[in-house]
Amino acid sequence: MAVGRVWAAAGARRRGKSDTGLAGMALPAGSGAPLAGAAAVALLSAALVLYARSPDAVLQRAFSLHKAHSIMDMENKLQLVRNIIPPLTSQKHKGQDGRIGVVGGCQEYTGAPYFAAISALKVGADLSHVFCTREAAPVIKSYSPELIVHPVLDSPSAVRDVEEWLPRLHALVVGPGLGRDDTLLENVKGILEASKARDIPVVIDADGLWLIARHPALIQGYRKAVLTPNHVEFGRLSEAVLRDPGDGSDHREAVRRLSRALGNVTVVQKGERDVISDGEQVLECVQEGSGRRCGGQGDLLSGALGVLVHWALRAGPEKTNGSSPLLLAAMGACSLTRQCSWQAFQKHGRSTTTTDMIAEVGPAFRSLFET
Amino acid sequence: MAVGRVWAAAGARRRGKSDTGLAGMALPAGSGAPLAGAAAVALLSAALVLYARSPDAVLQRAFSLHKAHSIMDMENKLQLVRNIIPPLTSQKHKGQDGRIGVVGGCQEYTGAPYFAAISALKVGADLSHVFCTREAAPVIKSYSPELIVHPVLDSPSAVRDVEEWLPRLHALVVGPGLGRDDTLLENVKGILEASKARDIPVVIDADGLWLIARHPALIQGYRKAVLTPNHVEFGRLSEAVLRDPGDGSDHREAVRRLSRALGNVTVVQKGERDVISDGEQVLECVQEGSGRRCGGQGDLLSGALGVLVHWALRAGPEKTNGSSPLLLAAMGACSLTRQCSWQAFQKHGRSTTTTDMIAEVGPAFRSLFET
Repeated sequence: MAVGRVWAAAGARRRGKSDTGLAGMALPAGSGAPLAGAAAVALLSAALVLYARSPDAVLQRAFSLHKAHSIMDMENKLQLVRNIIPPLTSQKHKGQDGRIGVVGGCQEYTGAPYFAAISALKVGADLSHVFCTREAAPVIKSYSPELIVHPVLDSPSAVRDVEEWLPRLHALVVGPGLGRDDTLLENVKGILEASKARDIPVVIDADGLWLIARHPALIQGYRKAVLTPNHVEFGRLSEAVLRDPGDGSDHREAVRRLSRALGNVTVVQKGERDVISDGEQVLECVQEGSGRRCGGQGDLLSGALGVLVHWALRAGPEKTNGSSPLLLAAMGACSLTRQCSWQAFQKHGRSTTTTDMIAEVGPAFRSLFET
Repeated sequence: MAVGRVWAAAGARRRGKSDTGLAGMALPAGSGAPLAGAAAVALLSAALVLYARSPDAVLQRAFSLHKAHSIMDMENKLQLVRNIIPPLTSQKHKGQDGRIGVVGGCQEYTGAPYFAAISALKVGADLSHVFCTREAAPVIKSYSPELIVHPVLDSPSAVRDVEEWLPRLHALVVGPGLGRDDTLLENVKGILEASKARDIPVVIDADGLWLIARHPALIQGYRKAVLTPNHVEFGRLSEAVLRDPGDGSDHREAVRRLSRALGNVTVVQKGERDVISDGEQVLECVQEGSGRRCGGQGDLLSGALGVLVHWALRAGPEKTNGSSPLLLAAMGACSLTRQCSWQAFQKHGRSTTTTDMIAEVGPAFRSLFET
């Protein structure tokens, strides 16, 4: 299904839109053994059967093994993502499928933590908490009665207040709508330290990454962390950690280097393609999204990732088949976000906003992972 | 209709989903005389006619008399629930079909009292009040203009403030979004005492049950109380009241014991099946719901129960046919909540939230009780 969509996307792009989505892909760093030609041919034949209405488009691309590799690699990972999704059964109790906390929400920003927290719920978490400043709380609460919102982030007892809830949380998303107020960032440092001490997985985005760029030691070597920088944030992190942001020509290598320098923290570089690495393997998410770049899409990604990281870590190695759980979670969340973007764009075009994308989380999840 | 749905559920489960929903049901404690085989055969025949597309599924279950008993028992009670629903006539005045109060809403929790209060309205109450803390009030008001919200729960005069409204209320739902702040809990103790003194029915859920676990005497022997514990809350109550939570193997007996120890307060243990007892009879709600366990579902139940308890008590014995009004109300509210969950899940799958369920209250009510 997902493979089909990507090949369909290739056809569609060729027929008039940007032609760069699937171009220039390199071999996955982790796939030492090149895929057998037979496998690629089989994949391409399947694509031909599925999308016979644009055989020229498919044929024209048939000889780019790189593309086939990236797509097959993504599809293999998505199959593993399907494995880690917990079954919905009537024996379960509230909370078992995920209690996620979002740390962010300040004077300027209230939408971002809402987007992250509601996305976590719609992906399938049972409970979603937001830890924000006192004044941001009533606004974030008013967006949705589904969220549990704690007005504590600018309190002198912020770290203790959040720490009290940590035993009840499965994952923390740090950064959406956090801002750069020094007091808040200081509190978030304490919250990160407390989360690490409890071995709680953390997804770090937005101004959470600003904090990491200033204090990389906060996250150094913590294998349960995922960073989700966009172009600018990635440059800032690379500059801070490597003192050399590179020339930007080789995204895959740049992401791998940054991850490795941070002690194999998982890094998701969001962009035209999302590049994901744990310092060893490098994956690319080539799921078709849209050209719309409205604010808030990254919050959807980080909230979804919070849930998927929890599910992937809990699933155990027999479900992840030796793959890094965090890489799988990242591939799942990137694919989902792009699929939401694609679906919303079909309906709303240029007027698409993140709210429209969030309305697509259910159907997008189903089409990617439950068929 | 409801019977049909349950049998359809059995078939659907067998065709690929969890097979435990209807399994392992014991005979209702109140049904001393086993049902005649003829009745079971008639029921099964009807199911076969209705769901001829999965006759194998139905046949495979045909010889489990236990299941047939539980389903028929539930259907009999639902018939009585239909009896207690007040007719809508043009002679009525505002308020006659129910003025419900919800006590809860604090610093962290604002969604829960909203869910309970709006559910009461959507089930058919005429007016829905929320008594919450000062700061929670504007947020809860912002969720819906339908609610009357009193910012009094953390006031030094909280008990007196709520007491003033009690003469105008038909039932109180205590606990949704209450939290565990000592001052609030102390105020709620006073409100409970005042409600008992006025013989007002009370539904107690969430942190209202935390309070009861600490002070069981608050509710001891009050026959107009219904407690709605989930798995964790039930364990806490059993530990507090019985000093022995049991081994969890016999839900029915555990619920009956707790109810009896509390002086025949009605207890609704929410779970895979909802087990309901007044210390004498034990009922099970086997209406199909969904595997989704997002926060807020229990608030829908408690709000619906507030209305149904009022209706059941007002209906009188000729309508309830000798059944306990509170047991009937509980069976009605549990069935309704599960039907909402089922309907919402058909549309939204894993992304279902309580808001989606509340949107189904009207159609679910109609399909269960008005056909």
